[in-house]
Amino acid sequence: MNKSETVKVQVPATTANCGPGFDALGIACNIYNELELTLLRENKLEIEISGEGTGYLPENDKNLIWKVVKSVVEKTDAAYEGAQIKMHNNIPLSRGLGSSAAAIVAGITAANCALGEPFDRQSVLEMATALEGHPDNVAPAIFGGMTVSLCEQNVVKTLSFLPKIDLKMIVAVPEFFLSTKKARKALPEFVSMSDAVFNVAHVSSLIAAMCTGNIDVLSHSFNDKLHQPYRADLIPGMYEVFDAAKAAGALGTAISGAGPSLIAFAVHEEEQIGRAMVAAFSKYQVDSHYLILDIDNKGARRIN
Amino acid sequence: MNKSETVKVQVPATTANCGPGFDALGIACNIYNELELTLLRENKLEIEISGEGTGYLPENDKNLIWKVVKSVVEKTDAAYEGAQIKMHNNIPLSRGLGSSAAAIVAGITAANCALGEPFDRQSVLEMATALEGHPDNVAPAIFGGMTVSLCEQNVVKTLSFLPKIDLKMIVAVPEFFLSTKKARKALPEFVSMSDAVFNVAHVSSLIAAMCTGNIDVLSHSFNDKLHQPYRADLIPGMYEVFDAAKAAGALGTAISGAGPSLIAFAVHEEEQIGRAMVAAFSKYQVDSHYLILDIDNKGARRIN
Repeated sequence: MNKSETVKVQVPATTANCGPGFDALGIACNIYNELELTLLRENKLEIEISGEGTGYLPENDKNLIWKVVKSVVEKTDAAYEGAQIKMHNNIPLSRGLGSSAAAIVAGITAANCALGEPFDRQSVLEMATALEGHPDNVAPAIFGGMTVSLCEQNVVKTLSFLPKIDLKMIVAVPEFFLSTKKARKALPEFVSMSDAVFNVAHVSSLIAAMCTGNIDVLSHSFNDKLHQPYRADLIPGMYEVFDAAKAAGALGTAISGAGPSLIAFAVHEEEQIGRAMVAAFSKYQVDSHYLILDIDNKGARRIN
Repeated sequence: MNKSETVKVQVPATTANCGPGFDALGIACNIYNELELTLLRENKLEIEISGEGTGYLPENDKNLIWKVVKSVVEKTDAAYEGAQIKMHNNIPLSRGLGSSAAAIVAGITAANCALGEPFDRQSVLEMATALEGHPDNVAPAIFGGMTVSLCEQNVVKTLSFLPKIDLKMIVAVPEFFLSTKKARKALPEFVSMSDAVFNVAHVSSLIAAMCTGNIDVLSHSFNDKLHQPYRADLIPGMYEVFDAAKAAGALGTAISGAGPSLIAFAVHEEEQIGRAMVAAFSKYQVDSHYLILDIDNKGARRIN
């Protein structure tokens, strides 16, 4: 055969950190990128992109998904040299909603399916973490739900669970990009012990409240002192957007991933919260739109 | 009436921190201090102490329980000036098992019962936190189970839950005291961001694993970089005791509270783990004994 089976996968958007859970927590959200992949024996590459990133993402061998697919194929003894790739992207790029993690996970998952699934999900997690550099977005993109992840001595451990609260996520997506690299550079090398302890207590409460369904405790758990204060200057109006969301009924607020999108967590009043966030951004001359998202409970999966 | 009803309460021992959950986590354990209290109209104090601390704890108006009882009475308009107090202590003193938190919670709970329960458990938590200075031991002593606590702008929030794992705690109690004050002084004012992030990830995994019953993830979650490395010099043989416990089958290990007791968490092999911990301590000329404890699920309560 000159080509593999054609496989089609979808991968959810993800929001990492969730306030105090810096570099550890992530949640899969119900907007998806789709990828259709056929591996070719011949050294030929066809890439078609629609949706977010069209005209911006490369359609040649610099394409991230192609590089990921190739790296997966090379881990096996399969003799594929090219591919036909069709992407349809719904996840906004470089806004803190895990678009690069989704691309990596889509590439690995599709290649794995096209190759007859030589890799289990733990191997997919390890490959994706190695490519992305950290597991906080790739873990929920793979497993769905809310995830906690830790890396220790090259072991990546992830636990996925569904919160016992019917949580909605309202994401205000501003019309500017913020690179993760720039957002990382804003962080200090050292922090006070009291700030570290603050986050330990808040993330503990956040996870326990999510697992047990305690909305009162959850509403006190979203504050962060490890990364958000240092990134505030990169996101004009951040604190005002947070305050507007809470005044409109949000349980808590956070930067989505490394930003610039801001996220509110709520159990009601989603539309009001979204409108309030967009209005607060506009006071700082930032155009934005809002999305109301649910938690995705499936993660990356084949859909054909 | 010249005196109140006589009330008898029991309060569990507690182990705080549990490795990465510095100043946030605590677990109630099934050894108890008992307190029998009768409030007197006359200015007269009778204190009887048996068990741990006999001959060491003051039997006069310097007694911590009496001071706590008095402070609770003074919050009401009840006209009691004295008390008859009988304490029987099973919790070892100044070893990291929450003996001072137990005394404070016993005093508040007994006084509250003797006064006809003018205070609810949230008020008891706030009073106890104010007296102890932090909630990590008083919260599990009051509520039982495993607790996560946070203080923010004078609000104390605690969530108590029972882990979905039949967890045993093996505590090696050395024959020396370590004051919490001395253990606190060993800590630095600043820590690296990567150490802070390490604890955020580990405590997140620990809580999620406890809540969902994931033993594999739990066994990777007990490490800490915020307090234990700085306290190792105060507890001779600490790392060797940890290693011995793990080699004997423990899922993870930690300093109990501020030490000097060391704790192993396990689902089997409790006796072997306890013997291995005591043997490892003895190589450092530290005499110790071990306790095998279950999680207490009731917290402070009246027993007569």
